[in-house]
Amino acid sequence: MKVALIGLGSVGRGVAEMVAQKDLGISITGIADSKSGFIDDAGIDLSALLEKKRSRGFCGTKKILAPDVINNADYDALVEVTPTNAMTGEPGLGYIRQAIKKRKHVVTSNKGPIALAYNELRALAEKNGVALRFEATVGGAIPIFHTLEHGLAGNEILAIFGVLNGTCNYILTRMADEGLTYEQALLEAREMGYAEADPTYDVEGIDAAIKLVILANTIWGNGVKLDDVDRTGINLLTPDAMRLAEDEDCTIRLIAEAIPKKGFLRVAPRIIERNHPLVVEGTLNAITIETDMAKQITLIGRGAGSTETASAILGDLLFIRDRYVERS
Amino acid sequence: MKVALIGLGSVGRGVAEMVAQKDLGISITGIADSKSGFIDDAGIDLSALLEKKRSRGFCGTKKILAPDVINNADYDALVEVTPTNAMTGEPGLGYIRQAIKKRKHVVTSNKGPIALAYNELRALAEKNGVALRFEATVGGAIPIFHTLEHGLAGNEILAIFGVLNGTCNYILTRMADEGLTYEQALLEAREMGYAEADPTYDVEGIDAAIKLVILANTIWGNGVKLDDVDRTGINLLTPDAMRLAEDEDCTIRLIAEAIPKKGFLRVAPRIIERNHPLVVEGTLNAITIETDMAKQITLIGRGAGSTETASAILGDLLFIRDRYVERS
Repeated sequence: MKVALIGLGSVGRGVAEMVAQKDLGISITGIADSKSGFIDDAGIDLSALLEKKRSRGFCGTKKILAPDVINNADYDALVEVTPTNAMTGEPGLGYIRQAIKKRKHVVTSNKGPIALAYNELRALAEKNGVALRFEATVGGAIPIFHTLEHGLAGNEILAIFGVLNGTCNYILTRMADEGLTYEQALLEAREMGYAEADPTYDVEGIDAAIKLVILANTIWGNGVKLDDVDRTGINLLTPDAMRLAEDEDCTIRLIAEAIPKKGFLRVAPRIIERNHPLVVEGTLNAITIETDMAKQITLIGRGAGSTETASAILGDLLFIRDRYVERS
Repeated sequence: MKVALIGLGSVGRGVAEMVAQKDLGISITGIADSKSGFIDDAGIDLSALLEKKRSRGFCGTKKILAPDVINNADYDALVEVTPTNAMTGEPGLGYIRQAIKKRKHVVTSNKGPIALAYNELRALAEKNGVALRFEATVGGAIPIFHTLEHGLAGNEILAIFGVLNGTCNYILTRMADEGLTYEQALLEAREMGYAEADPTYDVEGIDAAIKLVILANTIWGNGVKLDDVDRTGINLLTPDAMRLAEDEDCTIRLIAEAIPKKGFLRVAPRIIERNHPLVVEGTLNAITIETDMAKQITLIGRGAGSTETASAILGDLLFIRDRYVERS
């Protein structure tokens, strides 16, 4: 199976390293970062390319850019792992459209295009007879979409509850365990590299809301948008509120919640029993799926990380290989 | 897709009811319980048959038995849900062999045949070009095999840790939460219908060990047997031991554990931190998979129940339908 890889940040490097290390029958024939690109139909020497990227800051030749790789490389599936832009979805959205129109399968970790244009992209993929998979967009290494699609096939999905943002969960864990204020815990999260200089996207629940939109659209096809999410962040939470919850054997977590029959689509800090499966520590993510037959299934795992995200992307690629590429 | 269903206890009834209720494109053309059988190539009227079973105690005519249904019905996949016999695997093992030799796919919830003869049955299924799936044998509704096979495809599985027996977990939860003795908690579990009159199979860790054998053989193909499991039950556990653990923010759970690189294959009560994802309450099951890329993924869900087990079986059937039956 031949793959074109667009994006060579933390996630892209993780994918390239794992493909190089593991004997999965996958070769990468085209790669682009934001400044350059490289094509080799016989399969790129990944360790040489990654070394070039490390030493020079770009991976290929500046005459070749991402659209050239998507157009001209010889590949079965595009792996699109450029940074998320939640407002426009670009440049990933354009890359994904371009690849699907060339009848290439697409695997992405990019939340923007899937949150903004899932219905359009799914229809486009169906029309072109290719797969569009995005396991890495929600819950990092947690195989939530595989579980919904196959493990729980035949179930009616009634509701979904998730701890979908590791930064918030880290802050809340530290507030609960150490009695820190929100500001103290945020500072610590920054020092640990879990929070960015501008933490708005995480602490105001925007990141979790985007993931909730992706889950809802995938499960129920209801075409909801980021604006439809009733959203409250964790930035106004006080140590007093946390202490009150802890006094009752509960704690507070930022829960993303979708219950279509009640019209609920919200992200908010919620009081939750300490021994509930969704109460996970630190930067972990957790997702509870409520169904008619299986009742409640909870998945817990790492929500971020280079190798962890590569796990989700390779799971998608291997699924496409087994289902589509080997047949043809 | 046409299905023959062998076994009409709690699990079999769950499957029949769900197939009748849901529009899954599945029809059941043959059914047998331990005393009788019924064949209808056009698809059995399931509500009439279940009513017959309820009122008379058997589902069909006594001239037709399970082997006749397996031989003579028109079906794509056998659903084998007869009771587990951990020593011989029978009668399920014979039924499964018979169906595979007739080139029928097989889905089973029966731990005996898979724990005793996985390698043989897998080879037989491969030779005959059919699928053998057994999601319901471990962890009830938890889609552990789907997760290992697809969600975590490409990962190297390094270790597996599980709370695989709901009866033991209920007893340990009650000992921890209420300070009950083992005997008191067992009595309560019996009254709740969670423990059988003879609880040996559960409390001595045999049931968990069988499930561990199935996991190990499936993941690592190492051909281990029940006798290879280093096994300690919960029946000698004292309230003092539990209190000591709880004093350290830990608790005790019966953990099934396989770490091939260390040569570990054991089921034993283990002291475990209270906030570890494997610490689940009551009759829940939980499984942590440790891998090279995803690191630790934990799945939590109901380990038993008629509808919950039907969820696992239907997941297997629909996977077979999508992967094999639609193609042909």
